[in-house]
Amino acid sequence: MPLLAPTPELELDVPKGAAAVSHTVVSFRDTTRIAREDQLAVEEPLEIRLGGKSLAVTMRTPGHDEELVAGLLLSERVIEGRADIDAIAHYTGPEDDPRIGNVINVLLNRPGPTIHERLHRSFFTSSACGVCGKTSLDAIDTDLRPIAGDVAVPLEALYSLGPALAAAQTTFEQTGGLHAAALFDLQGQLLAVREDVGRHNAVDKVVGHMLLQGRLPLDRHILMVSGRASFEIMQKALVARIPVVAAISAPSSLAVQLALANGVTLIGFLRPGRLNVYANAHRIRVTPA
Amino acid sequence: MPLLAPTPELELDVPKGAAAVSHTVVSFRDTTRIAREDQLAVEEPLEIRLGGKSLAVTMRTPGHDEELVAGLLLSERVIEGRADIDAIAHYTGPEDDPRIGNVINVLLNRPGPTIHERLHRSFFTSSACGVCGKTSLDAIDTDLRPIAGDVAVPLEALYSLGPALAAAQTTFEQTGGLHAAALFDLQGQLLAVREDVGRHNAVDKVVGHMLLQGRLPLDRHILMVSGRASFEIMQKALVARIPVVAAISAPSSLAVQLALANGVTLIGFLRPGRLNVYANAHRIRVTPA
Repeated sequence: MPLLAPTPELELDVPKGAAAVSHTVVSFRDTTRIAREDQLAVEEPLEIRLGGKSLAVTMRTPGHDEELVAGLLLSERVIEGRADIDAIAHYTGPEDDPRIGNVINVLLNRPGPTIHERLHRSFFTSSACGVCGKTSLDAIDTDLRPIAGDVAVPLEALYSLGPALAAAQTTFEQTGGLHAAALFDLQGQLLAVREDVGRHNAVDKVVGHMLLQGRLPLDRHILMVSGRASFEIMQKALVARIPVVAAISAPSSLAVQLALANGVTLIGFLRPGRLNVYANAHRIRVTPA
Repeated sequence: MPLLAPTPELELDVPKGAAAVSHTVVSFRDTTRIAREDQLAVEEPLEIRLGGKSLAVTMRTPGHDEELVAGLLLSERVIEGRADIDAIAHYTGPEDDPRIGNVINVLLNRPGPTIHERLHRSFFTSSACGVCGKTSLDAIDTDLRPIAGDVAVPLEALYSLGPALAAAQTTFEQTGGLHAAALFDLQGQLLAVREDVGRHNAVDKVVGHMLLQGRLPLDRHILMVSGRASFEIMQKALVARIPVVAAISAPSSLAVQLALANGVTLIGFLRPGRLNVYANAHRIRVTPA
């Protein structure tokens, strides 16, 4: 029984500055599906400009952006306190400029070698780098081909992922301090599981495991993460060409946008017997009980 | 009743390559305290060298490091597949070199403009930047003064933090996709709470809030985070001079090391009526029932 209706939204428009946004999801309870509204936490890129020059892009939930930038500049030790900031304000420009709301300008009272020294020491940026000065979706769309819709995944296979992951995790998981990522085939057979204090690291490890074995692209695979699904998780899945991503917890708005724009099936709140589909539910096959 | 005994460990030695480590914590149940062993997830810096040059430092749990680096290079699009990697291996050197186990060397088959172009686009690194080529504790120790031990916090104030945070969070928290950070005074009075998809952002926002009001240093304050306590959270607390950090979930090994080395009281698994103290329990005052 292919899943044709109800159809979830094909796009997700996030109002400027919103911290949460409503999205129609396909919610499964056993083999019953209903469409319902779900609230997503908004994730958007924020560009920080220092003296007019781009300094950093960070993903964040809009709101209190000046505070975020002030705190970040302090913890990166670019500033020492309030007195070092001359001005801090959102970029203003033409009303239709998509950057409005996502750019903060900072002027310091003591621009000096500190900043450049820090920049000199920087290597990788966060994966948000790809989105500098653009909306992230623009950047991704030009870089990656969407994933084709030619694979199917049985609903019962999705329900089995959580128990399979739990059985595979070491007792070490009992620290309560680790994230897990796991890779399954489309029938729900576990291929690899990795744990790490960083959830992005856990994903990098399972993908890297397959890469080192020469088994890319992962176009007939399911990626499962123990926590939330963010922009970075989706970006890593896309680069590895993974068509189905399942998270135990909630996806962010940007994760959903990325999934919608690139043909990735995105599942959240995965439990045995229940799950939400945030994008591309067409891959899920339901066998009537 | 000052808390003098049992004394938790003053240092935490992490065996090379271990993914978990045992640590003696002070565990409170109501006003009763016991010392017990807790398992911590290990967090250590990993330096990635490309053609002998430092490319990045990332915090991670040791294990499967080659996979982590391969996956990271793929998702940052430095490589496209296995064939691009000529060699990938841990740095070897004198037995007593502290970097052993935490440095990966990579040689590519196609060193080209891609990497340098990517580096050129990078701005901030992660806060792990401060630890490039060193152990992070060395780097922190030289940069920051330890926090003085001259403030006390009542146990009952700590127990009240969770309910106060829950009451202050918006319904938006119902998305299940947000982290929260909150700042309290030493009597448990809530001063600010911020939510974000990124837990570091939530901390930057509460600290930035106080900074913009000229209220730094935060040396008579408690920072509470809704999730885990990592290196980055502790680093941000230290820069803002916060003497007490409380997390709902587990701390990493490096968070505990940082707290021990710098006089920060670190609390984990905070619930009304119970908590674990991972470092510097001497600040906690217990009033007999």
